[in-house]
Amino acid sequence: MTQPTACLLIIGNEVLSGRTQDANLKFLATRLGEIGIPLREVRVIPDVRETIIATVNEVRAKFTYVFTTGGIGPTHDDITAECIAAAFGVPWEPHPEAWARMAAHYARQDPPAEFNAARQRMATMPRGAALIDNPVSIAPGFIIGNVHVMAGVPRIMQAMFEGLAPSLKGGVPVKSRAVHAAGMLEGRIAEGLGAIQARYPAVDLGSYPYYRPQGNGVSLVAKGLDEAELERVIAEVTDLVAGLGYAPVAGEPG
Amino acid sequence: MTQPTACLLIIGNEVLSGRTQDANLKFLATRLGEIGIPLREVRVIPDVRETIIATVNEVRAKFTYVFTTGGIGPTHDDITAECIAAAFGVPWEPHPEAWARMAAHYARQDPPAEFNAARQRMATMPRGAALIDNPVSIAPGFIIGNVHVMAGVPRIMQAMFEGLAPSLKGGVPVKSRAVHAAGMLEGRIAEGLGAIQARYPAVDLGSYPYYRPQGNGVSLVAKGLDEAELERVIAEVTDLVAGLGYAPVAGEPG
Repeated sequence: MTQPTACLLIIGNEVLSGRTQDANLKFLATRLGEIGIPLREVRVIPDVRETIIATVNEVRAKFTYVFTTGGIGPTHDDITAECIAAAFGVPWEPHPEAWARMAAHYARQDPPAEFNAARQRMATMPRGAALIDNPVSIAPGFIIGNVHVMAGVPRIMQAMFEGLAPSLKGGVPVKSRAVHAAGMLEGRIAEGLGAIQARYPAVDLGSYPYYRPQGNGVSLVAKGLDEAELERVIAEVTDLVAGLGYAPVAGEPG
Repeated sequence: MTQPTACLLIIGNEVLSGRTQDANLKFLATRLGEIGIPLREVRVIPDVRETIIATVNEVRAKFTYVFTTGGIGPTHDDITAECIAAAFGVPWEPHPEAWARMAAHYARQDPPAEFNAARQRMATMPRGAALIDNPVSIAPGFIIGNVHVMAGVPRIMQAMFEGLAPSLKGGVPVKSRAVHAAGMLEGRIAEGLGAIQARYPAVDLGSYPYYRPQGNGVSLVAKGLDEAELERVIAEVTDLVAGLGYAPVAGEPG
């Protein structure tokens, strides 16, 4: 079976200017891996119409799933929805269900808030879009084709994703096993590690130096679909570490 | 004058799997903006040869500067340097100066460490590469064409970048002014904000809701090259906030 793949588009000048630290990549990477839809590429792009349209059309053809974060609020720089309509060549128009949810939400406020033109933009979507629920702040995300459009605010994005997750068709979840060794340098273990990797091409064996106040070392992480194979790889890596005179400890450093 | 542009390639399975939180994007975005080389795109790509080669060749043609982080260590998954050699169509070969620095470094250790085959890979670079100094752990980064290849470990990457920065030809530094209002919602200010943005097309006016234990609100940030124009924009935004009945406070929330 071929694993499905995912691409994430982070849309927003605020990430590219360094104003905002992205907090969505790590969350989505982890959750998508758990579901068996490994994240294969991320692009951070500005709020520029031509760039959004061209990028969406490129990546939706290349990956099974595309997720976007950012650019679906009420302000002038929130242009994700209209650009995605343009990418799909469909009208950008009021979505009746989104419109109804949002009108009811603003009417419910005490005192009632105005469902004004800016807020109505958040209920304006590509024709044919299916809604992604937003239990935090009502304004929905949406799905069109294989593109899943979510908010950029992490708390809202996470709630949207968790509502969406059961409907995603994942492959085999990616599993992980690790061992680490304090005091070791990568250059000591690299050759032996490469030999192990060469014998297990289906496993992704990574080496990650860590630098901590308590001391430095290297984490060795095997990822793949077959848990028994991961156990064998980590057993070999553990022997390798011990043979070099270091003390292997299961798992990553806490 | 046309501003130079930058693209960042973050190379590494560990970011795409969610194991590692990237810490390089925000640093480089901020520093490049200060130097006047705005970051226009970021891609996170896996340790896959064909992907690295194709991506490097695509973005080096599109942007003034390309920076890469990750994949220049001693292990089997550190394939950035050889892929960049392939992208430029030049041999990947020992770099005499890098080789000399690293051989001397390992000989200096007490007891002397072996400058073994894995470590020699870190001194193997595309022919014609110029070195980027690494004051932290010796193994240099390098420059070839407009591509600047740096380590993934943030402390090392930052030291490499600061050594490199004086040689980069920046444009006009991007400046920023901000005002924020506690308790305000984006949907209240969006229309007026859009009208201000429309009158100042050279300014990038962003609206960023914040959610904090002390209370929610919206930050309004104007970025651009002309400080006097930014002051005018922020003065208009301040009046807009006050006119809506909120208390504008200069700067972003602390």
